[in-house]
Amino acid sequence: MKKIRASIIGASGYVGGETLRLLLGHPNVEIVQATSESNVGKFVHQLHPNLRKRTMLKFTSLNDFEEVDVIFLGLPHKVSSSKIDYIMSKTKKIIDKGSDFRLRNKEYYSRWYEFDHPKPELLDKFVYGIPELHREEIKKADYVAAAGCNATATILGLYPLYKNNVVDSVITDVKAGSSQSGAKANSASHYSERRDCVRSFKPTGHRHLAEIYQELGSDTVQMSVTSISNVRGILATCHVMLNKQLENKDVWKMFREAYGDEPFIRIVKERTGIFRYPEPKLLAGTNYCDIGFELDENLNRLVVMTAIDNLMKGAAGQAVQCMNIMFEFDETLGLEFPGLHPV
Amino acid sequence: MKKIRASIIGASGYVGGETLRLLLGHPNVEIVQATSESNVGKFVHQLHPNLRKRTMLKFTSLNDFEEVDVIFLGLPHKVSSSKIDYIMSKTKKIIDKGSDFRLRNKEYYSRWYEFDHPKPELLDKFVYGIPELHREEIKKADYVAAAGCNATATILGLYPLYKNNVVDSVITDVKAGSSQSGAKANSASHYSERRDCVRSFKPTGHRHLAEIYQELGSDTVQMSVTSISNVRGILATCHVMLNKQLENKDVWKMFREAYGDEPFIRIVKERTGIFRYPEPKLLAGTNYCDIGFELDENLNRLVVMTAIDNLMKGAAGQAVQCMNIMFEFDETLGLEFPGLHPV
Amino acid sequence: MKKIRASIIGASGYVGGETLRLLLGHPNVEIVQATSESNVGKFVHQLHPNLRKRTMLKFTSLNDFEEVDVIFLGLPHKVSSSKIDYIMSKTKKIIDKGSDFRLRNKEYYSRWYEFDHPKPELLDKFVYGIPELHREEIKKADYVAAAGCNATATILGLYPLYKNNVVDSVITDVKAGSSQSGAKANSASHYSERRDCVRSFKPTGHRHLAEIYQELGSDTVQMSVTSISNVRGILATCHVMLNKQLENKDVWKMFREAYGDEPFIRIVKERTGIFRYPEPKLLAGTNYCDIGFELDENLNRLVVMTAIDNLMKGAAGQAVQCMNIMFEFDETLGLEFPGLHPV
Amino acid sequence: MKKIRASIIGASGYVGGETLRLLLGHPNVEIVQATSESNVGKFVHQLHPNLRKRTMLKFTSLNDFEEVDVIFLGLPHKVSSSKIDYIMSKTKKIIDKGSDFRLRNKEYYSRWYEFDHPKPELLDKFVYGIPELHREEIKKADYVAAAGCNATATILGLYPLYKNNVVDSVITDVKAGSSQSGAKANSASHYSERRDCVRSFKPTGHRHLAEIYQELGSDTVQMSVTSISNVRGILATCHVMLNKQLENKDVWKMFREAYGDEPFIRIVKERTGIFRYPEPKLLAGTNYCDIGFELDENLNRLVVMTAIDNLMKGAAGQAVQCMNIMFEFDETLGLEFPGLHPV
Repeated sequence: MKKIRASIIGASGYVGGETLRLLLGHPNVEIVQATSESNVGKFVHQLHPNLRKRTMLKFTSLNDFEEVDVIFLGLPHKVSSSKIDYIMSKTKKIIDKGSDFRLRNKEYYSRWYEFDHPKPELLDKFVYGIPELHREEIKKADYVAAAGCNATATILGLYPLYKNNVVDSVITDVKAGSSQSGAKANSASHYSERRDCVRSFKPTGHRHLAEIYQELGSDTVQMSVTSISNVRGILATCHVMLNKQLENKDVWKMFREAYGDEPFIRIVKERTGIFRYPEPKLLAGTNYCDIGFELDENLNRLVVMTAIDNLMKGAAGQAVQCMNIMFEFDETLGLEFPGLHPV
Repeated sequence: MKKIRASIIGASGYVGGETLRLLLGHPNVEIVQATSESNVGKFVHQLHPNLRKRTMLKFTSLNDFEEVDVIFLGLPHKVSSSKIDYIMSKTKKIIDKGSDFRLRNKEYYSRWYEFDHPKPELLDKFVYGIPELHREEIKKADYVAAAGCNATATILGLYPLYKNNVVDSVITDVKAGSSQSGAKANSASHYSERRDCVRSFKPTGHRHLAEIYQELGSDTVQMSVTSISNVRGILATCHVMLNKQLENKDVWKMFREAYGDEPFIRIVKERTGIFRYPEPKLLAGTNYCDIGFELDENLNRLVVMTAIDNLMKGAAGQAVQCMNIMFEFDETLGLEFPGLHPV
Repeated sequence: MKKIRASIIGASGYVGGETLRLLLGHPNVEIVQATSESNVGKFVHQLHPNLRKRTMLKFTSLNDFEEVDVIFLGLPHKVSSSKIDYIMSKTKKIIDKGSDFRLRNKEYYSRWYEFDHPKPELLDKFVYGIPELHREEIKKADYVAAAGCNATATILGLYPLYKNNVVDSVITDVKAGSSQSGAKANSASHYSERRDCVRSFKPTGHRHLAEIYQELGSDTVQMSVTSISNVRGILATCHVMLNKQLENKDVWKMFREAYGDEPFIRIVKERTGIFRYPEPKLLAGTNYCDIGFELDENLNRLVVMTAIDNLMKGAAGQAVQCMNIMFEFDETLGLEFPGLHPV
Repeated sequence: MKKIRASIIGASGYVGGETLRLLLGHPNVEIVQATSESNVGKFVHQLHPNLRKRTMLKFTSLNDFEEVDVIFLGLPHKVSSSKIDYIMSKTKKIIDKGSDFRLRNKEYYSRWYEFDHPKPELLDKFVYGIPELHREEIKKADYVAAAGCNATATILGLYPLYKNNVVDSVITDVKAGSSQSGAKANSASHYSERRDCVRSFKPTGHRHLAEIYQELGSDTVQMSVTSISNVRGILATCHVMLNKQLENKDVWKMFREAYGDEPFIRIVKERTGIFRYPEPKLLAGTNYCDIGFELDENLNRLVVMTAIDNLMKGAAGQAVQCMNIMFEFDETLGLEFPGLHPV
């Protein structure tokens, strides 16, 4: 089979590095270019040392960009939308890992990002990139906007419940690893300060709420994000106030119906042992979203716990999953790594 | 001044060790005995290596117990209530660090601990040991039951709000360090498994809810506890649904009125920098409870974050604070350690 | 191509779990059985949760063992040698991950293991399983004894130097992760105690010295092992006293000649940046051995640093590498995972 | 008793913060000023959050410096020597925590620091600040240069052996926490990269060797420093090649003679249990140096392990210990914290 030609724009960060790792191991993909304006000429393994002896690829500039079959777009907020015309001229298919094309409603950008979107006419051309919700649209799409990491964890945990109209309201308490904040050093990321922190990062008003509202069709979710000492991983503890009494088997049924055939979703709920609920550390490097739940029957309260690797199912992995769907590849190609234990 | 004579019953665990450390540094206290049935004859520093070169005290048996002025009681649930008559015969004052005498209502023991309390007539003789709520009663008390760690963090964060009748309901999402589970090794505490975990420990039905309901006079609080990689420390993120619109200054006022003169409570709320909210790691070894908050004004939602060291303000430190009050010492005696930075 | 049939004896531990993970992803291998006497009937993913949704294999007993093409033997010291006749009757090829057949000289077992070897006549039938030293013998071997983890790191770092006769003596200071101590909980592995430890585990007399002496043909190496907080990984800092003055280019030449074509060895030595020397954390899950060095020219002293994942190149990965060689597969099959960054 | 007046020059860093913490708790000291040119006017607790509610002190400038009884000098290398005349004009006693006055021989500065010392005539006026070696000189000194952290750990472990002329040569393998690198963020200290690292920081040529040679009177020590994941703490594993056969009791005798009466040195050597050797994590916040050893009798090799908190016995704690000696206070005043367990 002829390989498709793919390039990564903005490949020096952590999501870019993971995209490189995944595509290098993908049997149907040839990586053409990896751009980073501040690292032109350097080997990609100088920034991503896990790729030593795996590739002799060097970073190039967006100015010397070649036409390809698909672009993985990893530019910062505001930058990707400002360059989107040029990027569209170079490829038929785009998978954007940033936030500039996730929201259908341009008002959401004004409200949540304080951002006057320069290309509102394009917003409808991007499909929101969570395959479990939008597989059929992604199949036909030229442009996909891969979902945010905290949003992915929250949406996947709540979607079956909202679909079944059993939710009154939700508080999502997200525990987040450091890689979510990117590869740039700053005083908050200084090791002696950041280590062991349990730091309330965004108690109210997190921007990913905009995506969550869009995808769940409801603004009854609130979210707080706390930074913890893991590098990778999200655990979203979703405290769900139900609008009716449910039993365990009802909840099982909703999740099975929604995700029974999904290759990357696992329901984790054991009565005994130490692996009774989802644990993000077990998912490092994988594209899984593990989901567990516990019902407080007396109280119409359901706790749903979802775990992902923010750089994988929360970013690069989900982007590659979307690519597989767009090009009609086996959906798990390049995403086979099962994760490590112990770790 | 003549020192009071104190003994610690059940001194081999982590709370016992902290009590030893604090009392060894307390100018008004002489430690008479430290009991541990399985360690009789060993030096206390063999189990608590931080006490090397600090004391030549050895563990003794409860069978050879001497009369003292105050007993710090650290026996497991069910054991302390079964031995309470003997213990009362040896002292006038008891500070119980366990759970057997925290609840006034014996029905709560049936419901939350599935425990038919053998001494319900004693429940009214114990004062619940959070000085910020019960200082005057503790002053006069002979018997104090020091509060549970997750309960302390939650109650101190919510008390001013319940007092002002502004709460509709609360979800408390507690992030908890490993020392809360004690000194005994088991498969869940095996390092290679426990490390880096973000493990849903008790998503529903935590026993400390009983204390919380008792102290707040309301059962409108729900709690989930997640184990994280810290050894010490609790961060309780309390998601408060308010029954009325509040402004920042209203919340400030309630906390200031409740805690303005408290030696061990600090309101931590900065606009900038990396120490904007409470961080449990900064409290290791201290008796502080740091409290911060963030208002989501549009939504009648208030996020209150409280941090403590579970072995200190959540156990041994609070017990010594109670002792200071009971014996009319300066309330901060022996509790002066300000904590470390960096750490 | 017809798959070879492989079974894992002793599959409940960490090395067994890694062997399962690797063989499940190996295109030429069918896993027939995974034995664990204390877990018969359980799904393997109950102990190795990363294998959820990857296999429905259950643990079986050695008593119901089927004939296969190759056995991965993971029994404890003394057990594997006691059962070796039975095991040999079930297969033509064995890859032993334990220590009972690593040493050619039965006296070494008496001296280092205080063990009177029951099958000394078999010792010559096993090839020591470091492919970089014994590839041709492994090709022809029926029985391979995969090398110890600390030994692998030390031997690979020193082999080119001993081969070139430039060593006077060596002190190897090994920093070791917790998974080296296995999956069984004990008081030393209790999280609250083990975490953050920098614990002198074996300052003198480590048993792996026996393998090192055998393979380097010299007893001029001393070793100390210190446990650190990583779960996986070894960094061996080999302080080499040279018997002659060397220049950087001499050392480069020796390592290039020894390892220039090796698929799993990388020389890591950069002048700038944060990845100047080998780092074990980058190797988690990979079969790489990264080697760096620094010369103290004035002093005839060379510091060689080698990093591996103890469960991979130090155990299961090296075993699979040996299998690939024994069955004339591509040597890297099933071992393609490049590791994660960040991690 | 009248308190002495002390100021801290360069108080914004980690050593400055620890000095503040210690002096705030010292009964005989009044802190007059804490300088930081880039933080003038800020509360010290904004940078050192453990000091919240402990002091309302604000940072001042060196330009507005008042006369005091003692100055704790914490300026960077080269800066303290350039400003030393001004500083001397403000006080009779100086305790320098930097490196500019540790070495007696100005040639050492040329060789190890590539630094042409501007005030070589002052070098003889400073006493090297390890009380266990120089207590009597410190008593009489006006100026003390507190020892470097890696040097302190190494010297205290080796001093009794060199004193008894039993050493042939030594390799010191130092495992070092992150706080040794200070409070400034950089790419190497970025949490996602620094975490879990076992990073060869300085395999050869560490500057602290100059102090070690000066104090041991011998250049037969080599040192490699590896950064590990702890924030505080040093474990120095000193591999000693002896020039004669020794027995355990000989080594015990040498250490007892040297340190038997020392308040801050503990010999840690247990046959059983998990605390058999020194562990730096147990020393966080304390001024202890714990020393253990293990003899390899067949080989004339002795492994000495020393643990300290680099910010305490390796910096601020040792400085306060020197102050106590200089002012004839009880040597342990302000240094009573025994450390935490568990931690």
